[in-house]
Amino acid sequence: MNRLFANLPTTVFEVMSSLARETGAINLGQGFPDDPGPEDVRRAAADAVLNGYNQYPSMMGIPELRTAIAAHYKHWQGVDLDANSEVMVTSGATEALAGAILGIVEPGDEVVLFEPMYDAYLPLVRLAGGVPKFVTLQPPHFRLTEEALAKAFSPKTKAVVFNNPLNPTATVFSNEDLNLLAEFCRKFDAIAISDEVWEHVVFDGRRHQPVLGLEGMRDRSVKIGSAGKIFSLTGWKVGFVAAAPHIMKVLAKSHQFLAFTTAPNLQAAVAYGLAKDDSYFEGMRTNFARSRDRFTEGLRTLGFDVIPSQGTYFVNIDIAPLGETDDVAFCRRLVMEHGVAAIPVSAFYAEGAVKNVVRFCFAKKDSTLDAGLERLAKAI
Amino acid sequence: MNRLFANLPTTVFEVMSSLARETGAINLGQGFPDDPGPEDVRRAAADAVLNGYNQYPSMMGIPELRTAIAAHYKHWQGVDLDANSEVMVTSGATEALAGAILGIVEPGDEVVLFEPMYDAYLPLVRLAGGVPKFVTLQPPHFRLTEEALAKAFSPKTKAVVFNNPLNPTATVFSNEDLNLLAEFCRKFDAIAISDEVWEHVVFDGRRHQPVLGLEGMRDRSVKIGSAGKIFSLTGWKVGFVAAAPHIMKVLAKSHQFLAFTTAPNLQAAVAYGLAKDDSYFEGMRTNFARSRDRFTEGLRTLGFDVIPSQGTYFVNIDIAPLGETDDVAFCRRLVMEHGVAAIPVSAFYAEGAVKNVVRFCFAKKDSTLDAGLERLAKAI
Ligand SMILES: CSCCC(=O)C(=O)O
Ligand SMILES: CSCCC(=O)C(=O)O
Repeated sequence: MNRLFANLPTTVFEVMSSLARETGAINLGQGFPDDPGPEDVRRAAADAVLNGYNQYPSMMGIPELRTAIAAHYKHWQGVDLDANSEVMVTSGATEALAGAILGIVEPGDEVVLFEPMYDAYLPLVRLAGGVPKFVTLQPPHFRLTEEALAKAFSPKTKAVVFNNPLNPTATVFSNEDLNLLAEFCRKFDAIAISDEVWEHVVFDGRRHQPVLGLEGMRDRSVKIGSAGKIFSLTGWKVGFVAAAPHIMKVLAKSHQFLAFTTAPNLQAAVAYGLAKDDSYFEGMRTNFARSRDRFTEGLRTLGFDVIPSQGTYFVNIDIAPLGETDDVAFCRRLVMEHGVAAIPVSAFYAEGAVKNVVRFCFAKKDSTLDAGLERLAKAI
Repeated sequence: MNRLFANLPTTVFEVMSSLARETGAINLGQGFPDDPGPEDVRRAAADAVLNGYNQYPSMMGIPELRTAIAAHYKHWQGVDLDANSEVMVTSGATEALAGAILGIVEPGDEVVLFEPMYDAYLPLVRLAGGVPKFVTLQPPHFRLTEEALAKAFSPKTKAVVFNNPLNPTATVFSNEDLNLLAEFCRKFDAIAISDEVWEHVVFDGRRHQPVLGLEGMRDRSVKIGSAGKIFSLTGWKVGFVAAAPHIMKVLAKSHQFLAFTTAPNLQAAVAYGLAKDDSYFEGMRTNFARSRDRFTEGLRTLGFDVIPSQGTYFVNIDIAPLGETDDVAFCRRLVMEHGVAAIPVSAFYAEGAVKNVVRFCFAKKDSTLDAGLERLAKAI
């Protein structure tokens, strides 16, 4: 057995969701909504399954979806993508991430990673033989600093894996921070693998800035997107990548051997969805912001110390004021004794883990949030 | 860029399907049926999309499908699989294969590969840092021999990647051959990664023998299956693996970082499908066998030298008697000048490629096959 994999723990998201299923806990851990998702998008998928194409589609994705992705970013952000040479559909963002890291990083290459980080990044970098260089972002603002980047980047830096909006901290990076990152990428000739799956889920009038739209980054960025997150249908596992043609050529090869293609019926429905007008996306954001506010308010009323959420489905609490020093033990108690699953944020660190932050997913029905709060009341 | 990927060609299946799309050729290359697939299975998927669960399912696959897979093999082949610890759903057989190879092979491990072989095997073995050891199977019977296996296996052999029924030759291996393989796996303590995606598509009363059912192989086999192939819905990309718990533990980890989960709605439909009674699968085989016979007969009538097909969607011709010495050039001419896409079998070799065999997919409507034959008449 490959020891790299044999020694890895099961992802905390699955661990917590399994525990929630087994114990009947309210699952505020893994990031997914508990409503059925947009009916018209699901209807488009059902229609494609019944009347559309169910055989191998083009390896790069069905043309309608690749065109819809390019049109969506053009309309939304003024970003020009060539549907033919710069867009590829993947079987979820996880496959996109694996393909990008395995396609770009060679043994011995250095890769800059920002902690806290999604738990797939590091194992994939190691699988590729890459040498991780960590930048630890400091609460409460999780800002990039020149000093920290200068320590992490070197002439051996091949890539950086970046996530904005940032899961788990629910931070949206400022343009100042993004420009600093771009400066370092240009200076050290590094590729930014930019996990932007939460791009549409930003609140309070924020707008997402894609890394490939930054100065000098168009030819050195891989944008990773997720239709599951855009349409609140996390199980669909339709993701995509956008990158300049010389990078896409290589990504197509890793995709070829990791997944090859993605269900054309779900692809067709995503193409339909991406053509929805702005009000749909605005409405989605407004709804999630309302849930965020309801849950944040509830947590504060109970006396929890809430770290404000700027985007994603998540909001964090600081458990230090409760005298808690072990987020994992706290989360275990929450799920086993109080019937609420949450995510211990230490799972997002490879070294120097913060142990006093716990993440909740607020992308739930009011009744779920309220029931969760009721149970949390007994935990404080 | 990772040079391994940067230097790889685009898979021949995609190349030929793209050429077919661009030129309007009849596509007898890539293996997929041109009918819509079983309506009841598609209806089950549409129903799940509309009324079922569309969020992250369990990482290992939805319980209904894992249970249905175990029940299916119990009923069909008398194989006992524990749905909980020995079955995992993947995003297609390609992901299953990538996960198995990356999960099992470590840098420096030797891996036995049989040529001709599906074109994903070798790049994945190389990506894992494995050292390929080739066994070239000889036409017309493509048998395993003690002599060839003895040359390929060594104390450093970690795994063998095996494919039965064999794509592209359409061979179903005999039990004698399979037992010989098992003997070598046992002797050299090797794991058999057994690509059995064509298991249900065997003709003339043949029955598929899974490698994990062979003596001493239960604890050293990874079975790879494909719902897309079982239900003639190749675009669905729902695959699965079966393996003993100590192997599955590691496969779950590679799955976690390569794909994580698979669309639960399509999974639900596959669970429905696997519970169909034997007559469904018999009917499917009978239909494909009829198509095989129609196309084989047509090719023979035109004067082509047909290599009989025992299973899969494929039948091959020997082009040497036509004075052809370059299968790639022949296939290019077929698609560009005669409007028929086929697959040059040399693409299935890493070394010592046979250059005189061309593969056709006969899993098509009669009208497609007849139109293909009409065009082929002009090519001979
Ligand atoms: C792929 S499981 C994790 C889902 C998610 O984005 C999260 O919960 O952080
Ligand atoms: C994954 S594309 C190849 C499909 C197939 O099995 C074949 O054509 O050989």
